[in-house]
Amino acid sequence: MPGFVNAHTHVPMSAFRGACEDVKDRLLRVLFPLERDLVRPGLVYRSTLYCLAEMALSGTTTFADMYYFEDQVAAAAETAGMRALLGETLIDLGSPDAPCFSDGLAYARDFVQAWKGHKRIRPCLAPHAPYTVDAAHLGVIRDEAERLDVDVMLHVAEMDFENRQFSQSHGSVMKYLDSIEGFLSPRLLAAHMLYVDDEDIALAKSRGIRVAHCPASNAKSGRPICPAWRLARAGIPLGLATDGPLSGNGMDMQGVLNIFPKLQKVREGRREILTAREALRAATLGGAEALGMGAEIGSLEAGKKADFILVNLDDFNMQPVYDWYSTAVYAMRPHNVESAFVEGRQILSERRMTGFDQDEVMAEMMRIKGNCSAFIADIVTKLADG
Amino acid sequence: MPGFVNAHTHVPMSAFRGACEDVKDRLLRVLFPLERDLVRPGLVYRSTLYCLAEMALSGTTTFADMYYFEDQVAAAAETAGMRALLGETLIDLGSPDAPCFSDGLAYARDFVQAWKGHKRIRPCLAPHAPYTVDAAHLGVIRDEAERLDVDVMLHVAEMDFENRQFSQSHGSVMKYLDSIEGFLSPRLLAAHMLYVDDEDIALAKSRGIRVAHCPASNAKSGRPICPAWRLARAGIPLGLATDGPLSGNGMDMQGVLNIFPKLQKVREGRREILTAREALRAATLGGAEALGMGAEIGSLEAGKKADFILVNLDDFNMQPVYDWYSTAVYAMRPHNVESAFVEGRQILSERRMTGFDQDEVMAEMMRIKGNCSAFIADIVTKLADG
Repeated sequence: MPGFVNAHTHVPMSAFRGACEDVKDRLLRVLFPLERDLVRPGLVYRSTLYCLAEMALSGTTTFADMYYFEDQVAAAAETAGMRALLGETLIDLGSPDAPCFSDGLAYARDFVQAWKGHKRIRPCLAPHAPYTVDAAHLGVIRDEAERLDVDVMLHVAEMDFENRQFSQSHGSVMKYLDSIEGFLSPRLLAAHMLYVDDEDIALAKSRGIRVAHCPASNAKSGRPICPAWRLARAGIPLGLATDGPLSGNGMDMQGVLNIFPKLQKVREGRREILTAREALRAATLGGAEALGMGAEIGSLEAGKKADFILVNLDDFNMQPVYDWYSTAVYAMRPHNVESAFVEGRQILSERRMTGFDQDEVMAEMMRIKGNCSAFIADIVTKLADG
Repeated sequence: MPGFVNAHTHVPMSAFRGACEDVKDRLLRVLFPLERDLVRPGLVYRSTLYCLAEMALSGTTTFADMYYFEDQVAAAAETAGMRALLGETLIDLGSPDAPCFSDGLAYARDFVQAWKGHKRIRPCLAPHAPYTVDAAHLGVIRDEAERLDVDVMLHVAEMDFENRQFSQSHGSVMKYLDSIEGFLSPRLLAAHMLYVDDEDIALAKSRGIRVAHCPASNAKSGRPICPAWRLARAGIPLGLATDGPLSGNGMDMQGVLNIFPKLQKVREGRREILTAREALRAATLGGAEALGMGAEIGSLEAGKKADFILVNLDDFNMQPVYDWYSTAVYAMRPHNVESAFVEGRQILSERRMTGFDQDEVMAEMMRIKGNCSAFIADIVTKLADG
């Protein structure tokens, strides 16, 4: 079958997976402090290699990522042989790789110039969110993306406080973004889109934006269910995504593919909507379309790139197969994936990565864990103290 | 860690997994016809062995099951070496193993007498549902359970038509069941409990009933989310369950454990409720309590039975482990389970069942699939014709 397309993640955060679960305001109280103190180029490169192993081992061949030191993510993706759309994250407050927005923009520009034209790796710009990058800076990014001819990735309508803020000022987050002329455009890959109503969906469609839907991660945060079925029905390119390892934990697309139709059926109260076949499409061709790669990958067709995986049906969780789509969506688990190919090159063979020494990458993660443990334990103590 | 307890399933239905997904009124239009024509003792025994392999391979050591020819399920559980609470299903209309209710009751009585006192296998009575077994028959079952001193399993408040019917006549399904004197009692293990309000929860608590919660299966059917967090907070013994392979598909408890807190967080709109630790409890000790086995299994403690599994942490989806509960709930996948023990006896060794020839059981399932395929294709055609 076609390899999975993971349409939104933050792979280097595998270093922090599982830290401080079930905590209120986790982004501000856990994530931002962790990143400020621990995220360095070496950690980004090694954690990315680790995470790419987990992703390839579960059949992902293409991913969209946004983080800091995104050049390191690109280098790791090249080593692993995977296909990727990679955005250097831009944020008004300082970030681990840039003390201010303009330094970040310079970093992003260098990153784009270094990787533009690569056969498998497509660089882009990734403003963090409407509540961390102001309208003026979003306008600068729009112009820069136009000049460089690259995509823009953004978290959209993910947080309740963000929804409250922009609903008050502009009617909705989407309407606020539309007030920045030309920002909502076919260049934009918007992640999340939880707080959107029918008007926002119509607006999204009319502006030609694309969407990465993160059902598992959003549910774990206790947020409203994204109207993903409605987005897809409106004709908006819709991909599925794990989100980062801190919010999504498991980086396998099987977990996402399994929960995606369930949450939509619950949201709509109708068991017959979003069939297994439609769900599987979102995890493959839908994701390719969301990444602007629909003509190249996402399905097994003459003329497309040879990005595919081999899945073992001969296992107790897979049989009997009466309907392949049901099996793929509801029964398949990560270990059923045996091999993965990107652009005709085998990147996973009998559950071993061909591009790097898997055991060494695992050993590096254990060292990273050793280095992060004290810092994370310290945050846990502070949270317990209130 | 303790082995998983799967608190409600219909293991022989592995023969039909994946047939006719995404169909309205699936119970009446697909399931009942399938069962009437295809369910025979041999199919039940072989499909059960198959399903027990899938369950043990993902770390389940105890399960609660209700189906027809439940004596065959018991024989298979004995072969596999698993622990089980098994209920012979009773239903007013004819069933595959009894042409009428009284024949079914005789069958169930024989089943209970044959297996009562077994070290690992506890037989019981399993009326199907309030809408398929009338009040008089539920009263008969209550008396028979008392006489035989066994548990009673029942689907409760699972279907929308059931909810409408008994809400109209008695205020709620639970209130209807309470109108059958003594039926709601500590003997009862109720599966689903979707359409229950605060009054029903208080009633459930006051009558001492126990609950099996099937989050993945219920969501796939597009039903309201069971207030499981509230049931557990009220002090009601709450176990997690896959439900049968036709409704739940994957028979691994990892899939259930993963979606359980996510759906509860969505239902309550609060990310901090139902922590990973609480979720894991429901999949182990909570399940044991729901099955009336809380004093024997469900945790690793001196004096309890040695039902446990070995989990491999040395895999890309597992590390880094900062918080074991987060890892177990959100990152663990079926293939991480290496071995399983029940009552000190190893039933799974390096991912091979010790009690039977795994390859032969797989070959039998392929034969069953061959036999069922034409029948299922026929139903698909009829459904397509409307």
